[in-house]
Amino acid sequence: MRGAQPLIGVFDSGVGGLTVVAALRRRLPGASILYLGDTARLPYGTKSRRTVLRYSQTNVDFLERRKVDALVVACNTASAMALDELIVLAPHWGVLEPGASAAVAAASRHIGVIATESTVGSGAYEEAIRRLDPRLRVSQRSCPLLVPLVEEGWEEDEITGSIVARYLEPLLAEGIDTLLLGCTHYPMLRGVLERVCGPDVTLVDSAESTGALVERELRAGGWTDGPGPGPASVRLFATDAGPRFAKLAERILGEPATLEWIDVNEPAGTLGSGEEVETS
Amino acid sequence: MRGAQPLIGVFDSGVGGLTVVAALRRRLPGASILYLGDTARLPYGTKSRRTVLRYSQTNVDFLERRKVDALVVACNTASAMALDELIVLAPHWGVLEPGASAAVAAASRHIGVIATESTVGSGAYEEAIRRLDPRLRVSQRSCPLLVPLVEEGWEEDEITGSIVARYLEPLLAEGIDTLLLGCTHYPMLRGVLERVCGPDVTLVDSAESTGALVERELRAGGWTDGPGPGPASVRLFATDAGPRFAKLAERILGEPATLEWIDVNEPAGTLGSGEEVETS
Repeated sequence: MRGAQPLIGVFDSGVGGLTVVAALRRRLPGASILYLGDTARLPYGTKSRRTVLRYSQTNVDFLERRKVDALVVACNTASAMALDELIVLAPHWGVLEPGASAAVAAASRHIGVIATESTVGSGAYEEAIRRLDPRLRVSQRSCPLLVPLVEEGWEEDEITGSIVARYLEPLLAEGIDTLLLGCTHYPMLRGVLERVCGPDVTLVDSAESTGALVERELRAGGWTDGPGPGPASVRLFATDAGPRFAKLAERILGEPATLEWIDVNEPAGTLGSGEEVETS
Repeated sequence: MRGAQPLIGVFDSGVGGLTVVAALRRRLPGASILYLGDTARLPYGTKSRRTVLRYSQTNVDFLERRKVDALVVACNTASAMALDELIVLAPHWGVLEPGASAAVAAASRHIGVIATESTVGSGAYEEAIRRLDPRLRVSQRSCPLLVPLVEEGWEEDEITGSIVARYLEPLLAEGIDTLLLGCTHYPMLRGVLERVCGPDVTLVDSAESTGALVERELRAGGWTDGPGPGPASVRLFATDAGPRFAKLAERILGEPATLEWIDVNEPAGTLGSGEEVETS
């Protein structure tokens, strides 16, 4: 109900979308969050539109059965390939439009976009940026190894530096002034991306700009004015909740995290029965 | 029926298992092959036993509904985590035991095993080797970046050399004399693996040794003595059949490949209706 604190549903192909959860928690500390990481079927970024749409719809249905008041598609690939065709009853947002508009606000001439293969292939970032400002140049580059590097925990490794330099070389040679991080895992690589780009390129992170958009819209809609039905809570569900994903979730959230194992096709009543996997 | 050419079902999480198909075709040119790559749910190598078992069983059921005479689990992770619990009616083999026995035959003292995180975590290679020869030392290393590097097409890249050297360093420092490639993608990296290992380490490839085992057992069982019901055919099905996977399939098979898109939960009668995706 309006005038209370909302329950926000967030899904991603894996745990990368927790970068969006972290942004939402900073901005809307009273809101409760239900997160779903589709870790059993990740990655989405190498898969076809048809498959990404099918997976995204089951994730939306799972969250809507749990009565979320608002829904965030915290996966760039799903935002790029499936958002327009998803059937969602609650107010909802992807990470693509907020990322594109933050990049347009930051850019002077030329935006570089790095993302998964499927996101780049969809051309959705390019379209979104051109709709906002057709004078800006846009160059894209898919970076399939960056998600595995984050998952390996090599964020600060020199090999990661070489791979990032390889991927960014053509974009930097073309003279981009803004780099849009078009995948929720990439903020974990901000350090190495900044070092490779140098001081003349502004990095824009779609997790942060999505958090800002959701906050603005929920406040404008009269949410967040009153107390919630209880203390704000964050529950993290995953379709495959092994220790590997729990560890990465802790690295992203910067605090202990418990993933609850869930089958997205189970009825809502069984939610509490999920096994929990902690990293400790 | 015996005395004719068999129809062999083969599945893998993706297209890496085509290295086994290539070995089978060289050895059993009269046999027909039905391949299933579960590309919509790959990778298996980062996922839990429970998820890998569930996915593997749907793949087995899909192939058995198509009346295969024999079945090969051409995925190391599924062989390591799920083979014992799978319900399979046809004679069947995984890639783990043949790989382990080829490594034992090649080794003098110390075998290094490289594989996915889940395969290494299962300890199945170590167990299989110790059962065959308890005097051999075994050291394992998970190499999560090698599959993404093959999928990126960077087999001959210097960055791949650095990453392979990083992964193999502890194994080489311990003095392994044999390196078992415990993932169907790794034969694609044979060049760089040989360069990093040097001439004193023997590389053993479970695709090749699995092909040899399947040939031996089918011939011993009276298969392959007569003509088939028609010319030998190879059909490649994939749960996500975008051009990315079709291109990689061509690189592995070394010839044009057509992937037919299939839902593993569809009844057998609809097989012919799959969309085809060609790389050209």
